[in-house]
Formats: sequence, C-alpha cells, structure tokens
Amino acid sequence: MFIDDAYAHLYTLSLQGLGVSTPNPNVSAAIYGADGSLISDGFHNRKVSVDHAEVVALKKAGSAARGATMVVSLEPCAHTGTTPPCVQAIIDAGIAKVIYAVGDPNPIAAGGAKKLHDAGVAVEHRESKELSYVQRAWLHKERTGHPLMIWKVATTLDSKVAASDGTSQWITGPESREDVQLLRAQSDAILIGTNTALVDNPHLIPRGHDVRPVRIISGEQEVPATNKVFDNEARTICVKSKSIPELMKVLCDEGFNQVLVEAGPTLGSALMASGNIDELIIYQAPKLLGAGKEFVSRLGISTLADHLELELLNVKAFGSDIKSHFIVKGR
Amino acid sequence: MFIDDAYAHLYTLSLQGLGVSTPNPNVSAAIYGADGSLISDGFHNRKVSVDHAEVVALKKAGSAARGATMVVSLEPCAHTGTTPPCVQAIIDAGIAKVIYAVGDPNPIAAGGAKKLHDAGVAVEHRESKELSYVQRAWLHKERTGHPLMIWKVATTLDSKVAASDGTSQWITGPESREDVQLLRAQSDAILIGTNTALVDNPHLIPRGHDVRPVRIISGEQEVPATNKVFDNEARTICVKSKSIPELMKVLCDEGFNQVLVEAGPTLGSALMASGNIDELIIYQAPKLLGAGKEFVSRLGISTLADHLELELLNVKAFGSDIKSHFIVKGR
Repeated sequence: MFIDDAYAHLYTLSLQGLGVSTPNPNVSAAIYGADGSLISDGFHNRKVSVDHAEVVALKKAGSAARGATMVVSLEPCAHTGTTPPCVQAIIDAGIAKVIYAVGDPNPIAAGGAKKLHDAGVAVEHRESKELSYVQRAWLHKERTGHPLMIWKVATTLDSKVAASDGTSQWITGPESREDVQLLRAQSDAILIGTNTALVDNPHLIPRGHDVRPVRIISGEQEVPATNKVFDNEARTICVKSKSIPELMKVLCDEGFNQVLVEAGPTLGSALMASGNIDELIIYQAPKLLGAGKEFVSRLGISTLADHLELELLNVKAFGSDIKSHFIVKGR
Repeated sequence: MFIDDAYAHLYTLSLQGLGVSTPNPNVSAAIYGADGSLISDGFHNRKVSVDHAEVVALKKAGSAARGATMVVSLEPCAHTGTTPPCVQAIIDAGIAKVIYAVGDPNPIAAGGAKKLHDAGVAVEHRESKELSYVQRAWLHKERTGHPLMIWKVATTLDSKVAASDGTSQWITGPESREDVQLLRAQSDAILIGTNTALVDNPHLIPRGHDVRPVRIISGEQEVPATNKVFDNEARTICVKSKSIPELMKVLCDEGFNQVLVEAGPTLGSALMASGNIDELIIYQAPKLLGAGKEFVSRLGISTLADHLELELLNVKAFGSDIKSHFIVKGR
C-alpha cells in the first residue's frame, strides 16, 4: 500500500535524524506525485540547516511540489520559531494533500492540520506506531519536560559489570560494543558519573559516526583535565554535584531530546530509584562470574511486591550476547 | 522434500518421547509407502511398552511394511537387550529402505546400519540437527556417562531469585511457570536441595502432564516427612550429603537421560562450579530489586578473564519475561 511504503521510507529517514535534530523533533518528509512516485524527501538535520524536514523536501522538489502529496512524520508546525511556519511553505508550494503520522502535542506549534485544511489542502492523519516510536524522545520531552533517559548497561548473564578484582573489559562482544556507538550517535548527550570517568577514562565519542553528542560528567569526585572526556572533540558539561534534581535540571535546560546514560551502578541506580530512567537497554554476555559488581543496587526495595516494574519492548540474540530493551514502568 | 517432511514428523514424535524413554533414547520411527504416504509411526514409550520405536511402527504397519521405507531418528540397534534387535525385526518385516538421522554411538548396540545393508536393505544416513538436538540428553549420557543436567532458574532482570526479605513468589509470569511444567515432564528426574525443599516446599509434579519424574532431594538438612516431595505421587530419592560427586553418582547409576535442576543458588552454584551443569535455562522477569539473593554465587572467580563461558542457544520473549537457553562451555 502507498502509505505503508511511504511510512517505511520516512522511518528510514527519521533514523538519520536521531541525534541531529535536537532540540527539535526528528521529523522526516517525502513528496509524491499523483502516480505515487517519489519526487523528493528530507529530514531535519539541525547540524546542517535550520530548515525543517518539510522545507528540505519542498526545496528539493521545486515546482514539482505543485499538486503533489506530502507525507510527513509529524503534523507540520503552524508557528514561527527559528524558521517561518511549515504550513505556509506547504500552502505556498501548492501541495494538494498532506498525510501526517503524529499530531503535534506542542500547544504553540500545533494547529498545523487545521490551517492547511482551511487553506484548501487535503489533510489526513494516519497513525503509525513506528513513526511515533522513532520520535518518542522528543514526544517524551514535550509531554514531561525531561529528555528521554535511556540507561545502557553491558553485563554478564548474572548482572555483573565488573569482577571482584574490578576487571570489566570487555564483558560483551564486538557486535554489542559496536551497537553502543550507534546508540551514542542517536543521542544528544551521553551521561556518566565521575567514578566511571576516573576508572574507565572513556572518550564517549561515537566511533564511526560524525556526530558529537554532548558529554555530561556528574558527581563530586575530581576528574583530571587530562582525561579523555575533556578533549576538544565534543562539548563536555560537568555537573559537580551528587544531586539528581540538579543534574536533571541541567539536562532539561539544555533541551536534549535523548540522553544515553552510560553510568555505573551508583549513578545509574540513583537515577533509576528516583524515577529518572525511562528506558533500559541491556547487553548480556553469555558469561557467569558468581561475584563482582552488580549493574543495579540500592533501589530501596526489600520485598518482591515492591519491585520496580519494566516492560519488555524487544529482545534478540546479538552476536554472542542478548540485547534487550525495556520501558521502565516504575513501582 | 520427502525427507524434510519425514524428519519434521519424527521431531514431533520425538518430543513426545522426552521423559518417557529413559534409560533408552527417545527414538521415533515412521514407515512410508512407495508413493510417500505415511503407513504408520511410533516412538519409544518405556512407560507403556518395552518396544522400540521401530517395532511400534512395524507392528502398526503389519504386512504393509513389506517393500516400504522406514525413516528413524536413530540408527536401529543390532543387539539383544530387553528386546530382540530392531534390525532383525526390520529385515523380517521386509522393509526395503531405512533412512536414519543419528548414528548409534553405543558400541554394543551399534552396527545396525551395516547389518541391514548386509541383509539387502538399502540404508541411508541423513543427518539432522533437530533430531540430534531432541535426542541430545541420551547422546550426552552415552558420551559422558552423566545425564544431561539442565539448570532452570527464574530471576529478576538483575539476577535475583528472592528479595532481601526472602519473598520469591512469583518472580516470573504465568507463561514461564507453565513452561517449567513441560520442562519437568520432559525430564527423567528433578533435583532440588534440602534448602529449597524446606523454604518453598515444592511438589515438583509436572502440572497438566501425566508423567512422574523422579524427585531428588540433595543435602544434609532434615526435611520433614510431611513435605510435599514425600507424597506418593512420584518416587523420591534423598541424597543425604553435600558431596557433589556422591550426588552425581546416584544420578548416573539411576541411568537418567536428563535431570532438571531446580536447585537454589547454593546447590546450583556448586554444580556449576564443579562442571556438572550442561545447560542453563533462564526465565528473566522484567523486574528490578537492586538487592536480594543472586541465582548464582561462589564460583570461585575473581577476575573477568576467568569467567565461566556459556553459549546462547536461543532467546525469546516469553509472556512478559525473557526465556534464554545456554550451553555451558566451562572455564
């Protein structure tokens, strides 16, 4: 079906927008002729241009946009921000019909569908789980005021992130470690605690991707200026505090859509216990240690009925490891 | 293809033989006419009859076996045990061709293919991963002298089998708990430690299945005669010792093909550390506790390089849980 194919195409485009659209949503758009052929497409890449996805596609289409159909992952905006409203650009270009997947929840930008309709453009709202999913970080931020916080952990099958003697490299296989590079590239910021900065001295730059998420170092320990996180490859923010609200305020103020939490057990558990982790991605290596450091601790739970509940989004074999992805439901 | 369909049919039959063939292999056989149509089939059910699968199928086929093809999961036996050799029955019935999936590793029973060939029966050995897999417990016993030991654990996502206050019911969801009934029914014995017998007082009878695996209680603690494991629904063996070699000797002497280990951390870890666990099945519930009792401990490993290695056989979402199945590779 036309719409299924078009939405699949938008999904692929939207993946490219992850990590480069912040603070805006990672919208994608495509323009199709009356015969269903693709005229042009685009996604919002804030690192390259302020143009929204609709405008990227319209500029590429030129006069071919007249009478064409635009399929777009988010309801076109109706307000003037950094750029003029997309709805005006769509109307001016002579687009005959707009199909969008997700309604704009932003009260300032919303109303685009109505404005298009009032200007004589046919408008259709066709929901898409996939296109909601790929925009979920921004949608979450709009709804809650917080970035989507994804905690990524790499553990043994018995939940250890280090052996008793502290050795921890490498627990998971090359496929999992490679996948983390992609997770990093799709995030706007990467958060670690000072302890991880001191013990692992990670660089946090996504290998093989040319985006540079902001590095956030949280905690009170002194990290030497010579540590890799302080090089010039990306911006680094230090939150010199153990206060979770203080840390969250910085993350909110920065306007990040998605923060990848690569923290160790102390900071990770504190964020989890305070309800600030939204999703959990675990890479479990087929290894047992029987002792060592647990990935999560000190949640303040002493009886099974008080457990912290997650919801499994998906699970799969990943190289020799298991990758699973959960939504945190809370207690 | 004929052989793929026939092997798929045998696989289904062989699943029914799991848990009821011991100490024999769970062999299945089917007899097909020249046009490829199924004449008869059978599997070895030691609880019902001493007849091997081949004989079950031959008896059902009667004179229709003459000139037909027999497809069988294991090379037909050539020796007289409780029953006369299957090869003689096959020759006497006038079977024209035998296709088998797994060669008999037993030096006493082997040689069946050659005897059939010498008697003028066409013989073909067509390997099958699936039919090897479904007979792996018996094959393992033949190779090692030990039953296949499968440790089943039900944990939270952070590897806990109980919260700090000892609460543990129920960690996993109904689908996982139901699946354990099938695992039990497919095993010849179910092993727990005295601690589990005392704390959980489990019955260990597979609900919804009419097989009755032997219950093995291992350890030195006194378990009251009123405990459920001592009722008359199945045989129960007590191994009043903490000695793993002593326990293994009993399991070997009994001739079990497959033992399902439902032990807690102490006995389970001791079996794992001593190299006596062959496979691990984990049901992980989407729950976090952050504290409590770990499913595995005291493996005597202090550095990552010394980890105990597993190999992932498969993983899938199972109700709201994750079920994963590993082969233990050792250190």
